[in-house]
Amino acid sequence: MRHGVIMAGGSGTRLWPLSRDDRPKQLLTVNGGRSLLQLAYERLLGPLEPSSIFVCTLAEHRDAVLAALPGLPPDNVLGEPIGRDTATAVGFSAAVIAELDPEAVLAVVTADHVIEPVAEFQAALVRGFELAERGDRLVTFGVVATHPHTGLGYVERGEPVAGTSAYEVAAFHEKPDLATATGYVGSGRCFWNSGMFVWRADVVLAQLQRHLPATRAGLARVAAAWTGDDRQAVLEAVYPGLERISIDYAVLEPAAREGAVAVVPLDVEWLDIGSWPALAGTLAHDAAGNAIGARTVLVDSSGNVLVADDPAHLIAAIGLRDMVVVATADVTMVCPRADAERVKELVAAVQAASAG
Amino acid sequence: MRHGVIMAGGSGTRLWPLSRDDRPKQLLTVNGGRSLLQLAYERLLGPLEPSSIFVCTLAEHRDAVLAALPGLPPDNVLGEPIGRDTATAVGFSAAVIAELDPEAVLAVVTADHVIEPVAEFQAALVRGFELAERGDRLVTFGVVATHPHTGLGYVERGEPVAGTSAYEVAAFHEKPDLATATGYVGSGRCFWNSGMFVWRADVVLAQLQRHLPATRAGLARVAAAWTGDDRQAVLEAVYPGLERISIDYAVLEPAAREGAVAVVPLDVEWLDIGSWPALAGTLAHDAAGNAIGARTVLVDSSGNVLVADDPAHLIAAIGLRDMVVVATADVTMVCPRADAERVKELVAAVQAASAG
Repeated sequence: MRHGVIMAGGSGTRLWPLSRDDRPKQLLTVNGGRSLLQLAYERLLGPLEPSSIFVCTLAEHRDAVLAALPGLPPDNVLGEPIGRDTATAVGFSAAVIAELDPEAVLAVVTADHVIEPVAEFQAALVRGFELAERGDRLVTFGVVATHPHTGLGYVERGEPVAGTSAYEVAAFHEKPDLATATGYVGSGRCFWNSGMFVWRADVVLAQLQRHLPATRAGLARVAAAWTGDDRQAVLEAVYPGLERISIDYAVLEPAAREGAVAVVPLDVEWLDIGSWPALAGTLAHDAAGNAIGARTVLVDSSGNVLVADDPAHLIAAIGLRDMVVVATADVTMVCPRADAERVKELVAAVQAASAG
Repeated sequence: MRHGVIMAGGSGTRLWPLSRDDRPKQLLTVNGGRSLLQLAYERLLGPLEPSSIFVCTLAEHRDAVLAALPGLPPDNVLGEPIGRDTATAVGFSAAVIAELDPEAVLAVVTADHVIEPVAEFQAALVRGFELAERGDRLVTFGVVATHPHTGLGYVERGEPVAGTSAYEVAAFHEKPDLATATGYVGSGRCFWNSGMFVWRADVVLAQLQRHLPATRAGLARVAAAWTGDDRQAVLEAVYPGLERISIDYAVLEPAAREGAVAVVPLDVEWLDIGSWPALAGTLAHDAAGNAIGARTVLVDSSGNVLVADDPAHLIAAIGLRDMVVVATADVTMVCPRADAERVKELVAAVQAASAG
């Protein structure tokens, strides 16, 4: 049976101070809108029923996830006691769901992007399910690249998979420099690596057994305990010992070298909202190019990104150009828009100041 | 007997959003310091006892004033039901205090400035009392001008008053343009108008009788009711009908033309903190020239003014230059330091938005 797993584990440092350890990016709502998690969930509805959608997240976020997704069965929140990177999260989800449904086929999706049109995403998802169901392939989604993005990894396609719109994966490539990225896009053979996948649970677990046997063994203990009384105790005993490694590095790349990965093209608008200027793209804009995610009064101000978590809080500015202002109850963050990628540095400085 | 009256009626629009209608500038404390009102009160102690110090303010600020000045007798808060400019406030204070002490001599001082050294101020105050007590003069204080300030009015001196360091006032001048201000300072005959005065209560009331008889009559009704049960009812009946006019325009200027005003030089550092850059001058500075009135974490940021009303609130910035950031619970205000004088415009826009 088909299932969806939304990976919602990130911390979103670059969206600080709105995102925090206790309030990850996927759960944020700006100006009364829907969170990225809600958008990811709604993208899966249609192809999937709520009962077959799971969210893999930190256990501490369980209540927030359920509050954001009232239709989600509470048992479908797969809570990790601590973060152990994507290979562990993927394996955990596959092991637990396979325990419930040994025939499970899993779409593993992220909640980091705004994706439009949703219908195109859903059509590709169905193609991915069909391809994963007919063999032992790991299926990834490759976003049709519109420009030489240096912040994303790339998937290079090989031969077409007969009878489908998919391709074998020739290779995965790390985030490139601009010249290399330009070459990738110009080649017509490279997609952006979406970090989204479809696979049979038994297939991905067999791959983990080959490439990360200790992780597979630990997750087998978790899965065996899942429907019993000691689920939590086993989770907390096993998780800290699991290796921190990404699914791309641990499984996808070696599997691709063996011809075991296919890529389904995903021809959508793919909007990362991992930083304030990127998030600004999802906000309403006024005539002066201000991205408005707050109650605002602006005089002679343009090109700013203005966000408050409390819809009643007022951000007022005069003579302000191209700044990011984020107001929360306990932190106000201000920086030029051009420095928004440096917010990570600022968070590190705040953490150092708190520790000092 | 000598008395002091602190005029604390202003709204301090240019220090918005820290100053509000319900929290005027004089009552603000930044970063755990003392408010301007506390500083003004402490300046009067020494020459005067707490029992002879009065604060003239809006009635709605009575509790806040008493909280800020625990030594002040509660009856010494002279609460105006509504603001009616300085001629009314001065007359109200004089009429009420004369009712309590017909021989009263009043030092009328503002709470808008940081004044250093305090001892110099106090010495000038005593000279003012002595001069006012020996005749019918209205005495004003003229700050020794150090530069051609265009934001202040000027007092032009005439002949010395024999046996004192004071002068007759030849004329008052409105806020000048820069060329005119430069001429004033170069003449060696002009002081900055401090807006502070000493006069016998009966003398200033007689001047009000000549120049603003309706106001004088209304305030006589208030004074007559002051020690009775209907004080509040009379205040509220009389006040709305009183003319809005400044004491300078209503009394000082015509009295000067008649030779009835003297000026005592005040050789102090006179720091207006009526705007954010000016207030910045009273704050601690870091090595990068940031004026720090909040808990801050700053990376690669210089020349900013950073103020929060809650000492636990964090202002964090990266790449920020020469900005004013003021964080309160319900409003965040951001503007370039060079635009800080325009905060009034912003407040007007906020008021218009609230009304709309």
